[in-house]
Amino acid sequence: MAEKKDSVVLLVACKDRKGIVARVAGFIHDFGGNILDSDHHTDREAGDFLMRTEFALEGFQIPREEIASAFAPVARVFEMRYEVHLSEHRPRVAILVSKQDHCLADLLQRHRRGELAIDIPVIISNHETCAMWADLFKIPYEVFPVTQEAKREQEHRVLATLKRNQINLLVMARYMQILSADFLAAVGCPVINIHHSFLPAFIGANPYRQAYERGVKLIGATAHYATEELDEGPIIEQDVVRVGHRDTVEDLIRKGRDLEEIVLARAVRMHVEHRVLVYGKKTVVFD
Amino acid sequence: MAEKKDSVVLLVACKDRKGIVARVAGFIHDFGGNILDSDHHTDREAGDFLMRTEFALEGFQIPREEIASAFAPVARVFEMRYEVHLSEHRPRVAILVSKQDHCLADLLQRHRRGELAIDIPVIISNHETCAMWADLFKIPYEVFPVTQEAKREQEHRVLATLKRNQINLLVMARYMQILSADFLAAVGCPVINIHHSFLPAFIGANPYRQAYERGVKLIGATAHYATEELDEGPIIEQDVVRVGHRDTVEDLIRKGRDLEEIVLARAVRMHVEHRVLVYGKKTVVFD
Amino acid sequence: MAEKKDSVVLLVACKDRKGIVARVAGFIHDFGGNILDSDHHTDREAGDFLMRTEFALEGFQIPREEIASAFAPVARVFEMRYEVHLSEHRPRVAILVSKQDHCLADLLQRHRRGELAIDIPVIISNHETCAMWADLFKIPYEVFPVTQEAKREQEHRVLATLKRNQINLLVMARYMQILSADFLAAVGCPVINIHHSFLPAFIGANPYRQAYERGVKLIGATAHYATEELDEGPIIEQDVVRVGHRDTVEDLIRKGRDLEEIVLARAVRMHVEHRVLVYGKKTVVFD
Amino acid sequence: MAEKKDSVVLLVACKDRKGIVARVAGFIHDFGGNILDSDHHTDREAGDFLMRTEFALEGFQIPREEIASAFAPVARVFEMRYEVHLSEHRPRVAILVSKQDHCLADLLQRHRRGELAIDIPVIISNHETCAMWADLFKIPYEVFPVTQEAKREQEHRVLATLKRNQINLLVMARYMQILSADFLAAVGCPVINIHHSFLPAFIGANPYRQAYERGVKLIGATAHYATEELDEGPIIEQDVVRVGHRDTVEDLIRKGRDLEEIVLARAVRMHVEHRVLVYGKKTVVFD
Repeated sequence: MAEKKDSVVLLVACKDRKGIVARVAGFIHDFGGNILDSDHHTDREAGDFLMRTEFALEGFQIPREEIASAFAPVARVFEMRYEVHLSEHRPRVAILVSKQDHCLADLLQRHRRGELAIDIPVIISNHETCAMWADLFKIPYEVFPVTQEAKREQEHRVLATLKRNQINLLVMARYMQILSADFLAAVGCPVINIHHSFLPAFIGANPYRQAYERGVKLIGATAHYATEELDEGPIIEQDVVRVGHRDTVEDLIRKGRDLEEIVLARAVRMHVEHRVLVYGKKTVVFD
Repeated sequence: MAEKKDSVVLLVACKDRKGIVARVAGFIHDFGGNILDSDHHTDREAGDFLMRTEFALEGFQIPREEIASAFAPVARVFEMRYEVHLSEHRPRVAILVSKQDHCLADLLQRHRRGELAIDIPVIISNHETCAMWADLFKIPYEVFPVTQEAKREQEHRVLATLKRNQINLLVMARYMQILSADFLAAVGCPVINIHHSFLPAFIGANPYRQAYERGVKLIGATAHYATEELDEGPIIEQDVVRVGHRDTVEDLIRKGRDLEEIVLARAVRMHVEHRVLVYGKKTVVFD
Repeated sequence: MAEKKDSVVLLVACKDRKGIVARVAGFIHDFGGNILDSDHHTDREAGDFLMRTEFALEGFQIPREEIASAFAPVARVFEMRYEVHLSEHRPRVAILVSKQDHCLADLLQRHRRGELAIDIPVIISNHETCAMWADLFKIPYEVFPVTQEAKREQEHRVLATLKRNQINLLVMARYMQILSADFLAAVGCPVINIHHSFLPAFIGANPYRQAYERGVKLIGATAHYATEELDEGPIIEQDVVRVGHRDTVEDLIRKGRDLEEIVLARAVRMHVEHRVLVYGKKTVVFD
Repeated sequence: MAEKKDSVVLLVACKDRKGIVARVAGFIHDFGGNILDSDHHTDREAGDFLMRTEFALEGFQIPREEIASAFAPVARVFEMRYEVHLSEHRPRVAILVSKQDHCLADLLQRHRRGELAIDIPVIISNHETCAMWADLFKIPYEVFPVTQEAKREQEHRVLATLKRNQINLLVMARYMQILSADFLAAVGCPVINIHHSFLPAFIGANPYRQAYERGVKLIGATAHYATEELDEGPIIEQDVVRVGHRDTVEDLIRKGRDLEEIVLARAVRMHVEHRVLVYGKKTVVFD
């Protein structure tokens, strides 16, 4: 396998206008950069322009720490939101988990195999159940039990842990608690959740039970950014699997686990490779 | 291709008890029948037993017109609902269509290729648009325009046409009208509808527009029996196709057409082969 | 639906070097063009660079007939192969068909619905069977029977018909003849074939029978460019559908028809929108 | 979740004749058995009849150890091959693994979650690499290195280990060695292998590399019984995932891992629930 070279990802969003691609590509070329991958999308209905460009760091004449400020004048011309990500900065990801361990175990195994270029400095749970995985992969495991009375306090402890670990992404790997609006306002990084249905079908509790009772012929899973409105955040990835009348609720749960793992893992991978741009209530995924 | 021999399909539904399979198989065997295919399902949660058995007519010692009454004593023992269908009785299917012709054209082509063992004595529409297909395949085409004032009268004319043609199944092939509760109560045969979403997501009007705005990564289609509650009838078949941020609403409509055709055709095929049993709000599909 | 504006597609292939994107985007921007869509791919293993850029014709300062020659100096710098396609030039597509009509009928219906921005000046067959579709859609239908002795002559008549109709793409819509190397050398336009298996499995005759005997759990269809080596041409699109032990060869054929239609239609659409670039024995599909 | 009651699975294969279903169902009913699930298949082309019936042990009047002999007279009448499996006898499964651990880890996690009603008394490898999984789940791990000179001897040690552990099923979870014909003749239990392609495409070594070079648009995985002819054994399960021109060989390997895990796990589950019947070079899977 070829050694992956250091690179820079530039994410850009603005209103659509003439000349954006030429200007961005020109900026990179003018300073000796070599574009490795570039994709953009124009939402003609909304008039939005979104772009992801990855270029080699090697040979680029602007020092890495000055790239963002050097691009600012270009951004100003087009009134762009933009982000600059260096591949050498591995995102720091925290995982929230309850009792079910399959999504956690799956992410940790992918991480160990090198599928995810991230660091996982901490796993946080409201139960002891999944500690074996943290032990196995030598990752700190923090347990903050949730109680009716002290939900707010528990969230504060989670927030403090995230802050202390300088987390860039929080992943809810079947964390069976709803994060409060206060938490989401304070968290300071994106939060990805896996919902065990094909949203917007079966919002809320027990989606497999709901699916069973409705008699659907496919069940799904949805990875999305968590927002204040439950199960309404921008969707990153979805997939489905066929079920039939022989499948009990337990079978749906079993089949669903495979979906949940794969859909969540794809979403996390897309996010940490800076391939997802949110605009409005939707996402663009440059895969 | 082997000539298909005449056969009998026996559909049975009752509360689960010991000995049903043995009793039904024994009834067939005792009168010289040869079982070609047999499948059953026990819903342990609901305690329901559902069964489909197909056996060869050749060599069966009960005359075809007496099979149903001969089975009645067995049915009484187990308090069964049951149906007897002879393969030589081809279901008479009417198709309801509005302006979009793709599902209609698809069903007619499958019919001509011999995929559907049915007769199609009439196509009914509220528009002239699809008459070319009726002409091509030499099927009577009745137009009953829908007006705000005269919706009830229009439905009466549809009902009269169905009755006159002794219809066993009514297929709504993207018929853009909602059938009234009165119509459904009076129609006297099952009605299959194709809804252009993955139900229960995106109930009601403009599901592709809804899907576009929610930013889903898959779109679906659902064939279900029409009931009084809009889009709530028992689901027969569903499928999905992947969409992405580049797809406009027009692209969703285009991709969805292929889904609609295939999902509706599968549902109609399963129904006319007597493979679908409704129980509660769900179906068993013995495929 | 928004009126689609006239646009230009520029396809480019060359060895990978620094600055290609900037140079191409700069060329378009310098002459007042507005990029609508742009995608490129670098095959790092082969060192190949491939790019598709679509820009609005409106406001572009180079007259349409001079765009290709105006781009030549840029192409020379990077030793590019390139093509310029104007959306106002609808590709002229001929369809070759034998007795089975489903792919033909499907393409013609998509064409009529506006899914394919092409002209279809002629349908060519070795049988009369499909003439009804040509009649229905008012397209000339030429029949050149194939005989053992006169295969070469038959191919000459097909070639002459293609030439006379100035065909840009030839589609084999389940044409059950193998085109000779001489034909392919002389045809002067790409040829797309649909093979009824998941290539490279089941090359050659009777793939459904082969699949049945091997006991596979999925069957497939493959659209590819026809080359001298049978079923070895660059693959444009593939898909599969699940089959089981209950499916006979006839069921495989029936299920396969839906696949064949959809896979062929997607490949034709991608090709006529100039989204497919062949390199080596493979394709890049910018979808 | 409902406690699963003890049950008996009866598998039957014979030439098709009248009255088989009635006779088998009658046998069960006559001795007080309650059929929980029953499915059969008639291959009309081959004239084969295959059946799986599961019935409750509770209330069945024949002692469990005598069921097989009690059924023998029925089997003789129809010249049946048959097997009787008691749910209380959990199949003893050994897993063969090399350096790649994903399929092993997946099976072990499913086992721990209760998805597979089996015992795993031993894991056998030619490398130390996967010992951590054996440790984690407290399963004996035997390492028998493979050398050019001593392949035969290594196989003998594997066979002895299988025998000592009274293994009913051997699973090759990405075991990168080819088992010799002698081994397969001596092993005395079925062997399931996972091949990382959509067989019969890409038989042999490096299927992902082969797939990459052919430029396919989907990659697959196939679980099959191992036979003397490499990659030619009866197929139990297959699935595919979409790939594109951006995917490198490494991406195919990564995407393929998910497929391999799921396809192998499904096949093992089907086998240990006695849902797979081999006939000729094919399988029936009663799912």
